Amino acid sequence: MNKPISTIFVASRRALSTLHPSALATVSKTSDALRDNPVVNPGIPVASGVGSARRTDNTDPKEVLNRIAKLHDTDLLPNNVNGWENSRAFLQQVVDILYDYIKEEHKRSTKVLDFHQPEDLKKMIDLKIPEKPMNLQELLESCEQVLKYSVRTGHPRFFNQISCGLDLVSMAGEWLTATANTNMFTYEVAPVFTLMEHEVIRRMIDLIGWGPNEGDAIFTPGGAIANMYAVNAARHYHFPGIKAQGMSDKLCIFTSEAGHYSIKSAAAVLGIGTDRCFHIPTDDIGRMDPEALERKIEECKREGLQPFFVCATAGTTVFGAIDPLQKIADICKRQKTWFHVDAAWGGGLLLSPEQKPKLAGIERANSVTWNPHKLMGALLQCSACFIRHDGLLMDTHQMAADYLFQKDKQYDVKYDTGDKAMQCGRHNDIFKLWLMWRSKGMEGYRRQVNDLMDMATYFTDRLKATEGYEVIIDKPEYLNVSFWYVPPSIRHLDDKEKYARLETIAPKIKAKMMERGTTMVGYQPDGEKPNFFRMIISNPGTTKADLDFLIDEIADIGKDL
Amino acid sequence: MNKPISTIFVASRRALSTLHPSALATVSKTSDALRDNPVVNPGIPVASGVGSARRTDNTDPKEVLNRIAKLHDTDLLPNNVNGWENSRAFLQQVVDILYDYIKEEHKRSTKVLDFHQPEDLKKMIDLKIPEKPMNLQELLESCEQVLKYSVRTGHPRFFNQISCGLDLVSMAGEWLTATANTNMFTYEVAPVFTLMEHEVIRRMIDLIGWGPNEGDAIFTPGGAIANMYAVNAARHYHFPGIKAQGMSDKLCIFTSEAGHYSIKSAAAVLGIGTDRCFHIPTDDIGRMDPEALERKIEECKREGLQPFFVCATAGTTVFGAIDPLQKIADICKRQKTWFHVDAAWGGGLLLSPEQKPKLAGIERANSVTWNPHKLMGALLQCSACFIRHDGLLMDTHQMAADYLFQKDKQYDVKYDTGDKAMQCGRHNDIFKLWLMWRSKGMEGYRRQVNDLMDMATYFTDRLKATEGYEVIIDKPEYLNVSFWYVPPSIRHLDDKEKYARLETIAPKIKAKMMERGTTMVGYQPDGEKPNFFRMIISNPGTTKADLDFLIDEIADIGKDL
Repeated sequence: MNKPISTIFVASRRALSTLHPSALATVSKTSDALRDNPVVNPGIPVASGVGSARRTDNTDPKEVLNRIAKLHDTDLLPNNVNGWENSRAFLQQVVDILYDYIKEEHKRSTKVLDFHQPEDLKKMIDLKIPEKPMNLQELLESCEQVLKYSVRTGHPRFFNQISCGLDLVSMAGEWLTATANTNMFTYEVAPVFTLMEHEVIRRMIDLIGWGPNEGDAIFTPGGAIANMYAVNAARHYHFPGIKAQGMSDKLCIFTSEAGHYSIKSAAAVLGIGTDRCFHIPTDDIGRMDPEALERKIEECKREGLQPFFVCATAGTTVFGAIDPLQKIADICKRQKTWFHVDAAWGGGLLLSPEQKPKLAGIERANSVTWNPHKLMGALLQCSACFIRHDGLLMDTHQMAADYLFQKDKQYDVKYDTGDKAMQCGRHNDIFKLWLMWRSKGMEGYRRQVNDLMDMATYFTDRLKATEGYEVIIDKPEYLNVSFWYVPPSIRHLDDKEKYARLETIAPKIKAKMMERGTTMVGYQPDGEKPNFFRMIISNPGTTKADLDFLIDEIADIGKDL
Repeated sequence: MNKPISTIFVASRRALSTLHPSALATVSKTSDALRDNPVVNPGIPVASGVGSARRTDNTDPKEVLNRIAKLHDTDLLPNNVNGWENSRAFLQQVVDILYDYIKEEHKRSTKVLDFHQPEDLKKMIDLKIPEKPMNLQELLESCEQVLKYSVRTGHPRFFNQISCGLDLVSMAGEWLTATANTNMFTYEVAPVFTLMEHEVIRRMIDLIGWGPNEGDAIFTPGGAIANMYAVNAARHYHFPGIKAQGMSDKLCIFTSEAGHYSIKSAAAVLGIGTDRCFHIPTDDIGRMDPEALERKIEECKREGLQPFFVCATAGTTVFGAIDPLQKIADICKRQKTWFHVDAAWGGGLLLSPEQKPKLAGIERANSVTWNPHKLMGALLQCSACFIRHDGLLMDTHQMAADYLFQKDKQYDVKYDTGDKAMQCGRHNDIFKLWLMWRSKGMEGYRRQVNDLMDMATYFTDRLKATEGYEVIIDKPEYLNVSFWYVPPSIRHLDDKEKYARLETIAPKIKAKMMERGTTMVGYQPDGEKPNFFRMIISNPGTTKADLDFLIDEIADIGKDL
């Protein structure tokens, strides 16, 4: 029983890590637990005698650790009714691993990732489901190993996705959400969270600009599903017979060439057909051409199609472009179609009175998609679909499943959300947003959004001033900054030849960047434009020095290509 | 600076709680953090002089607590680059609140819920989004308040939902998932998690019984969406033109009267129409009548409809019935329709060699829905849709969004899952399952499932032996036990009159039960059967004594009705 810690490590398959002795500080709470539950705990040795508040302080931490390491989930709650102290010690070990990860993630000296090819990584990490239970030490090692090879999306130099950064208050919220482990479909099992969702929805509807008696919303698993909700609600509004009788008319919908592919995907899933999702051309900075939209709608009508849904985008994926919302709203009014704004990415601009005018016209929308997991920085996932017409979500999705959503409850069932949803069970995505929003208040978000916009301007200016870089859009409207790095070897070429060569430059730089692991930024082509980098500045932890670093790093990797 | 802790509490709007001094034990790690980042930390006071390993031990905990309480999210990482110690202290406070919650949740003396009517609860808890940022103390109070009024779904006497219990290893997994905060759509940003998903999917496909080269799957936000995936994939398999050209033919689908409403919902969303989702009658224990199914399919064909999809259910929501899978598979083969098994609830039986024969025939399915957040006890949400035909998920959902899922990456993009999904971003639901499964191994799950089945038998026998109780199904196939409590006042009535009176008994008992807060169990009507209780035994923490308690409690509440 007194063998040193290292003994257990040798016995375990991979000794990647050491356990965290600080976890054992929690043992000072043991006495409470024992008073509540006096049966001797099989995991933690208990000093004999009656407990004072600190009586376990003299327990040898190594000994405790040794015992926890060899325990199994059967020694934890709820499998072992006396398993609380084991459970706490185990959870604290996990939390300490997470603390180390978070602390490391925010150091510039930490790599953003430790890249390996899939076939190599498979050999480096044991992913098998075993026949026998693994002990707690093995589980802790699993946690460490998984984190070691994960991409640090919260690192201040991770720019690869629109969702960057790790808001610790939101993260704490998600920890609590996990522990509360409930389902959003009824007030009965989620009383606080359903009311909370209602409150936050009203706040967001205010920001969109609908009236106090207008609007309803549902939090959805991602923006693509939110967009599908919008198309489905619009279809039900215009063609209520389809819900029961199915599709027969030839409906059609519209978004821009730069709009998110989830609109096309919704057309496929809903039985509209991708051929009847029309992509309207954009101008040179990625905004939908409203005249082209109206021409296309009228052309469709002449051909016997039934246009019913237009998606304008506020913050396109690649360029961050914002479609001309007012003009599109006018067209939708004239043409009697639904006006949807996909503000999954751009919605956060509503939090800044300075930036909000860019989204003028959103208040005229019939529906809005807004993902707080993007600009607002909530943990993944946090998305919502807002529908202006109160009651429409219910009409669209209600299946009268009285065996699940009884009407004869003792409370007002209008607080139950199950019948509004395409899903049955629905994850609690509200608490992590609500807690984070309270931590910042309206003021904090205003500052955060404005600061990020300033950073994007700084980055754009720096690119323009740096040899070898070419920005694609001179003055980006939003936080996407798209650019080429042109290596010295091809700078002298004429545009056509240079563009042809550029197609392979960004992928090569990206590959090398991932091998170095120092930073991550995405690339893609767009129409005629060969592969270019798309920088996203949405992590409040990113500094100007991090932006300078990216500029230097890309040049350093790419200068000899 | 030396004012007592109570001072801050008075200043805060609601002093519900005390902070947890044990959190401060974490400060013993401070010296590491300071070595890494020597700038003076604005939140935590630092003793002057160079750090020994324990130099902060003498810092007055009250003093530290006092300072943390008044800090804001701007004092945490990543907003404050020196905010690590503040961050850890805050997170540890949250974790300690969660520890208290978990510990309390598992005590029988703790209430399952503290029920209040929605309008009352709104007044008792502040849900507003404020103008000014709230400080950390206020956020911690918010956490405590939210938990205080939440329903304890992990309580051993919570029987209200199919998903009950709180597996602490799965919960630890979800905490890590939150911290890793990444997106499942590419290997690039989720290298370990995409490989892990692949590994777990293969293990589950083995259990379903498909061949080593058959099958693909995707983890989805809940079983309803998993079912929608199945219907959509089946439609694409049988009518590949619909993806591009939309619906025009009259398709139809089938499930039983006891099948989950998500099949009907999928018919509505996909443009098939709820009128063309046919509900086949069931026998007296809730299983689909296969002859009636075949008659209906043939009738539909005669009427010019195109039957293409049959959903058999393995574990219905109310009775836990398992449809005759082999017979339905035979019919699907004869009639050339897709054979789907909705094993959202029953899939977990595959983990027990003793129980698995009940699902014989599932290996013949074209697709299977299986929710590990149900019988397997993973945290919400964890669901998957399995498709036997490799490549079909990709064919069905791919939208060729090259701007997001580039093909010219430096790794084999077959590991990217984005194009298989109806969603774009996809939550990581795999880690919490994987870690939990490793903790139990195949052996542990086998025992867990068998133990739960024994408990259901015990409960059924106890009901039968107790005066006033009537079970609806004499020998339930699964873990759902449905029953009436018949108060003495109506026991003498004839069946017709008794049934009429029973309709209001369960709701009344449930309402009172929620007010008492001692336990929770659901009720619903079913066809001719008036409201009855549906007991679900899926929390491994539930004991026979808890089942006895429920029987006594219902009788105690209902005896005078």
